[in-house]
Amino acid sequence: MLTEGILFTDHYQLTMAQLYHRYGLAERTAQFDYYFRSYPDYGSHQAGYCITAGLGPLLDWMDRTWFGDEEVAALREIRTSVGGRLFEESFIDWVAGSGGFGTVSMWAVPEGRVVHPNTPILTVEAPLAVAQLLETPLLNRLNYATLIATKTSRVVEAAGGAAVMEFGMRRAPDAAANVATRSSLVGGTVGSSNFAASYHFGFPSKGTHAHSMVQVFMADSGSELEAFRAYASVYPDDCLLLVDTIDTLNSGIPNAITVFEELRVRGHRPVGIRLDSGDLAHLAIRSAALLDEAGFPDVSIVLSSELDELTIWQVRNQILEEAPRYRVDAERLLERLVYGVGTRLATSHGYPSPTGVFKLVAIEGADSEWSPAIKISESRAKVPNPGRKRLWRIYDSRGTATADLVTLDDHDPYERPIRLVHPSFPEVTRTLGHYQVSEVESLRVKVLEHGMRVPGDAGDIGAARRRRSADLARLDPGVRRLVNPHTYHVSLSQELSDLKQDLIAGFKS
Amino acid sequence: MLTEGILFTDHYQLTMAQLYHRYGLAERTAQFDYYFRSYPDYGSHQAGYCITAGLGPLLDWMDRTWFGDEEVAALREIRTSVGGRLFEESFIDWVAGSGGFGTVSMWAVPEGRVVHPNTPILTVEAPLAVAQLLETPLLNRLNYATLIATKTSRVVEAAGGAAVMEFGMRRAPDAAANVATRSSLVGGTVGSSNFAASYHFGFPSKGTHAHSMVQVFMADSGSELEAFRAYASVYPDDCLLLVDTIDTLNSGIPNAITVFEELRVRGHRPVGIRLDSGDLAHLAIRSAALLDEAGFPDVSIVLSSELDELTIWQVRNQILEEAPRYRVDAERLLERLVYGVGTRLATSHGYPSPTGVFKLVAIEGADSEWSPAIKISESRAKVPNPGRKRLWRIYDSRGTATADLVTLDDHDPYERPIRLVHPSFPEVTRTLGHYQVSEVESLRVKVLEHGMRVPGDAGDIGAARRRRSADLARLDPGVRRLVNPHTYHVSLSQELSDLKQDLIAGFKS
Repeated sequence: MLTEGILFTDHYQLTMAQLYHRYGLAERTAQFDYYFRSYPDYGSHQAGYCITAGLGPLLDWMDRTWFGDEEVAALREIRTSVGGRLFEESFIDWVAGSGGFGTVSMWAVPEGRVVHPNTPILTVEAPLAVAQLLETPLLNRLNYATLIATKTSRVVEAAGGAAVMEFGMRRAPDAAANVATRSSLVGGTVGSSNFAASYHFGFPSKGTHAHSMVQVFMADSGSELEAFRAYASVYPDDCLLLVDTIDTLNSGIPNAITVFEELRVRGHRPVGIRLDSGDLAHLAIRSAALLDEAGFPDVSIVLSSELDELTIWQVRNQILEEAPRYRVDAERLLERLVYGVGTRLATSHGYPSPTGVFKLVAIEGADSEWSPAIKISESRAKVPNPGRKRLWRIYDSRGTATADLVTLDDHDPYERPIRLVHPSFPEVTRTLGHYQVSEVESLRVKVLEHGMRVPGDAGDIGAARRRRSADLARLDPGVRRLVNPHTYHVSLSQELSDLKQDLIAGFKS
Repeated sequence: MLTEGILFTDHYQLTMAQLYHRYGLAERTAQFDYYFRSYPDYGSHQAGYCITAGLGPLLDWMDRTWFGDEEVAALREIRTSVGGRLFEESFIDWVAGSGGFGTVSMWAVPEGRVVHPNTPILTVEAPLAVAQLLETPLLNRLNYATLIATKTSRVVEAAGGAAVMEFGMRRAPDAAANVATRSSLVGGTVGSSNFAASYHFGFPSKGTHAHSMVQVFMADSGSELEAFRAYASVYPDDCLLLVDTIDTLNSGIPNAITVFEELRVRGHRPVGIRLDSGDLAHLAIRSAALLDEAGFPDVSIVLSSELDELTIWQVRNQILEEAPRYRVDAERLLERLVYGVGTRLATSHGYPSPTGVFKLVAIEGADSEWSPAIKISESRAKVPNPGRKRLWRIYDSRGTATADLVTLDDHDPYERPIRLVHPSFPEVTRTLGHYQVSEVESLRVKVLEHGMRVPGDAGDIGAARRRRSADLARLDPGVRRLVNPHTYHVSLSQELSDLKQDLIAGFKS
């Protein structure tokens, strides 16, 4: 479909591509870096790290995308303001002949990893015109996915070991619902309500039933109990009942217990109940007390209703404080909770607008020599890091990640001591001696070599889930903190910092 | 593709459908209403109205969606927690045999119209199981589209007649970028940077060039001026230059003027300049002064960089205040401005989480009699309006919309006086006499009759754009206000209010 193909890009990428073609620059090799400028700031709280996501689907899209007849026909139809053709035939020939993204090489941090602002998470090396066409779809694919994986990771951290399910489909942004499902799996959910996407990605979809099911039985002269019995009869081994259609404590829970007892007699193990309104912490405690008393201390209690990381954190704290009053073991209750997180996860509530950018950092000259490129902006912090680069993570003597280091391409990371320079203020430096460093890790892998996929698991969901867990275990708890996290260090090597300052000075002179 | 077909729905819709099938309820006709619960609240400011969008693409999707072999195979694969098949063959036969949405009838407010909370914007009448399967994709398609059309309408209002272009693709939520483009056209933009979607929808895509183009010429021992000359040479009749790569006032504007003069000599009309950083209002004034002096009083000045309705409002106010100091005619400057609005439009910044819901309101009994359905919730305001209904707009003697009235299906709107009852507090009423009402309009049209499209323009973009303009012209300026708008009245008829209160009372007894 045209709207999902190679013309899924900004108008100006095509007009610039034609200009480059006219000026003999279209095939000049260039490097562009993808990075984001700041952590998501949710208003009342800010993230201390991000989780990469979206690489696998981006690579899949690039594989299946090229200029076909439909695209050529569209380009031929576009007019200038005075009515002539905007795209000349020689450009169309060239761009159509270039196929798709078969000339692109790419280095990227694999999915599921902890990453930080102003580091080259991904670098594209390609003919200038091709890299330019790729800019918009690449940003589009990576920005939202990373935003959702990051939000999810925070939600999962807030849940403190309890399972989190993604229920966001109905309020996710249109077809991006499937990306929300995938990115939330990368971010650590145990599953999603999204049936087709879950099946496609190989994870079981999850669900209970809606209030409407109880309403249907009631409108048909039935009752909540009859609705629950019907559900238990059809799904005896997956019986999870929504108990708040009428009155949670006086109707829903007692009816659920009746049905659970009937299931037990028939040899089935009831799964749980779901609370979807009211004071969730209080109702969870009261429900747990009733379920414990009835001999169901192990069935899950699923909470849903506008949850996000802060609400979950508040719910857990309230339970710790309030449970003893009802003789409920708070710790055991926390372990049986499951959080159904929907809207606020799928929309990255509080911070829906990612800051990911794709900036030209180097271009090959007519003489095949690379020149670093820079853009001087109003603020120091927005000046991109120029040149062809690499990205490293430095672990301290305890094995905790202590800094991400951006260096030039020919940097030897095994030199000691390691000198770290502030990205905007070159006079601010730090030096790490031998004994302070347990490991220096290269964060990026090559994923495309002239359009060919480099074998590896950089875009694999299962591997991404493992990478996230491993990275969080090696991240300072202060950086992981939900509110007002400690700022992680991102530094430049001395050589990169010098290059950057020289280019800025050259610009200003 | 499976992930975009009829299984693009929540897991529980399928399990409920199977339960209804087992209990002989699957083909019982039911009505569900789509409505939203509150206006978007962007944090510092709240909307006073919403603009409908998404209906056309939803209907198109329903047309092309059905149960095929791939879907059947997927259903057969899903397991219960103890390993058996979750979906039995008789249900799969039934649901696959039902095809797709060929049994659905639908009434909807056409796209582009002003709408308000807790009114049935759309009603689905369908076999219970089919309506349930449709719930998730319907919400998914309408929620985001309406959110973006609403945000856009506010941005367009803030621009006060100046053109607004949508530049949001790179930070829009993945494939929803195309929906953002469509919905922003419904909301009043003049065009988008999104090439393929614009072409597909029949609107010209728009663009300038990127900073990278200037960087490329500079890295290649060229200059900003050479980059501009190249652009003017390739696009002499569409020459819009981005002037802030180096220094807007000391380099960008002078270079642009040089190139514009060269274009003029060659008989072409330069289009404009774009400012993408810094104090946009101040730079617009200073740029206008320089362009006026050089004899280009008519070229556009495009502003971009994290714009939204409040920023645009502030920019316009600052120009009104500051322009005279530079001997620039503020009103004329405001008229030549064009706003490029991207991220914050495509993500509905400040309020990304729509509140649209789809609630069961009536179901046909075994006796073919309709029963109203209701759900009692914690808060009065969240109780849905029960029964089969209609939606009316009442215009006052000046022709201004004064209230939206929700009535039962058999209501005669031409009875006078019209009694309006508060949706949650039935004791609060208002009566409109003959002389106070100039028009009563039925807001919804039938768009589907048992799966067949009813001919009409309810989902047409061009018609939607005209409807939005017409509706805003008939909306009280207080309701259109950007910040702290006046609350529009949504009322129930006496009969509907009575039914609602009776059902609530019946529930509680």
